[in-house]
Amino acid sequence: MHELTKRILAGDVRGAARAITIIENDYPERSQILQELFPHTGKAKLIGITGSPGAGKSSLVDNLIGYLRSQGLKIGVVAVDPTSPFTGGAILGDRVRMQSHALDRGVFIRSMGTRGSLGGLSRNTRDAVRVLDAYGCDVVLIETVGVGQSELDVMHIADTIAVVLNPGAGDSVQAFKAGIMEIADMFVINKADLPGVEKLQIEVEQMLDLVKHDAAWRPPIIRTISTQNQGLEQLWSAVCEHQSHLENSGEGQARRSKHLQGEVLEIVHDQLFRHMEEKLEKGGYAAAMSEVAQGTRDPYSAAAEMIRLFFPHTP
Amino acid sequence: MHELTKRILAGDVRGAARAITIIENDYPERSQILQELFPHTGKAKLIGITGSPGAGKSSLVDNLIGYLRSQGLKIGVVAVDPTSPFTGGAILGDRVRMQSHALDRGVFIRSMGTRGSLGGLSRNTRDAVRVLDAYGCDVVLIETVGVGQSELDVMHIADTIAVVLNPGAGDSVQAFKAGIMEIADMFVINKADLPGVEKLQIEVEQMLDLVKHDAAWRPPIIRTISTQNQGLEQLWSAVCEHQSHLENSGEGQARRSKHLQGEVLEIVHDQLFRHMEEKLEKGGYAAAMSEVAQGTRDPYSAAAEMIRLFFPHTP
Repeated sequence: MHELTKRILAGDVRGAARAITIIENDYPERSQILQELFPHTGKAKLIGITGSPGAGKSSLVDNLIGYLRSQGLKIGVVAVDPTSPFTGGAILGDRVRMQSHALDRGVFIRSMGTRGSLGGLSRNTRDAVRVLDAYGCDVVLIETVGVGQSELDVMHIADTIAVVLNPGAGDSVQAFKAGIMEIADMFVINKADLPGVEKLQIEVEQMLDLVKHDAAWRPPIIRTISTQNQGLEQLWSAVCEHQSHLENSGEGQARRSKHLQGEVLEIVHDQLFRHMEEKLEKGGYAAAMSEVAQGTRDPYSAAAEMIRLFFPHTP
Repeated sequence: MHELTKRILAGDVRGAARAITIIENDYPERSQILQELFPHTGKAKLIGITGSPGAGKSSLVDNLIGYLRSQGLKIGVVAVDPTSPFTGGAILGDRVRMQSHALDRGVFIRSMGTRGSLGGLSRNTRDAVRVLDAYGCDVVLIETVGVGQSELDVMHIADTIAVVLNPGAGDSVQAFKAGIMEIADMFVINKADLPGVEKLQIEVEQMLDLVKHDAAWRPPIIRTISTQNQGLEQLWSAVCEHQSHLENSGEGQARRSKHLQGEVLEIVHDQLFRHMEEKLEKGGYAAAMSEVAQGTRDPYSAAAEMIRLFFPHTP
């Protein structure tokens, strides 16, 4: 057993942090540690929190952590920011607010971006969540900034997905366009002291009538004013109710099975791609690639030849 | 030479439409047709138009088509909508407006979504754009709805990327967060008759000072009121100026080389993945996958074994 595996299972916070760095940088020991941790995962509740920028997700997460800590729960947060590798979300100071928990040993917060992420962002996030699960977190919150395909991919890691909406921001239409309605297990209307709450609630209800959902679970709409700690208890009880629904209906196991199988394919995919990149870096196929670059050779026939060379037993 | 290749090169609109359907469904003749068309591509100007929902992209594209048609140019439009496979953007009626050109033989409009797209969306879009290029379009407009990673990927197909912003919608911050500032070759402030134009222009200028750009090309900011056909001439002349810059500086060739080489890797990637899926469908590895689904086997070791089985000469 790898030394870090032992430290993580013993609840050593530095061991967990180190393992996530290993994941982000795709160091060779990654696979061994994750294989060893795997049998110790599956205990944490995995909650995804997403919504458009400005909906108040960070503040909601911040206050939800406070609420869950008051219940004696150990909390992990993975804040995912798949936006610009140059500017990131950090420039906007989202993360600064969460520093209020920086000295609390029962809260582990980690931001993940695309910078230096050699595996895919959703794969790295899933592995980081597993580290926190094995490390002993009762709840892992997975927060994404913004709405887009990469955020949707990341959200599939969670068992329960809460979409945070902001009254008066045209958020209902945004969520509809971004395909986020279909993945929501619940909606949170945050900043529920602002005007436009009733209108937004009606719009979301109408959209829920249109969108195909798990017949046995209609996503509830919860109102919060996270800055005043209002609605957090209701939000948490909706999460627990959803998790019971997942277990009782078999839907939870079905989702997990599907995601685990998808994960196998994703890992194979990444490994093959890396194999190809290594061959290319060593100069294999350089002449043909140079013809492609000059536009004198089409990329379709070049790809077919590359497969024959690098993956000889693949038709 | 495939019969469709001949028809497309002869300017047959139905041949072009059929080829794009073949691309979307990834039919076997796809590769042959694209290989044959490739030497006949590279003549069209490829213009990407993106921005957040509600910025008025569809209306801008619609009126830009009218302007370019008045210049005697043949126009292709590929409208990409990588949002929900269930609802799509179509439900919002964006596409309806473009029907004003439906009877004009000099305009070819095609929407592409994720539904039924077996290759990746950006790969399919790139191939569709090549069909329109070989078919004889002078200009191909690539329009994406919304902002996210998949839209950014799609935009890389274009030579010139215009980001459409809407005054008063907090659009500058949105664009900043989504990493779209770095890819913009120009900004279009549409609906320039609304309040907030000066403020938005100043914000964009300030952001341009912060963001790393091609030193020899600072993205201009163009104001349009597309519903009144204002600013279209200025927009088009900025596009032409940017294209001259690309050619004269060598930047255009550098971008094309990079994208063509990336494309080879993407095709290889897709082929290998399909090979794996076919093997799996035939029942290869079914027992192990079932263990993974039940959670009794970790996905990491399962992936390693699958590579040994399906891609035996890959380390």
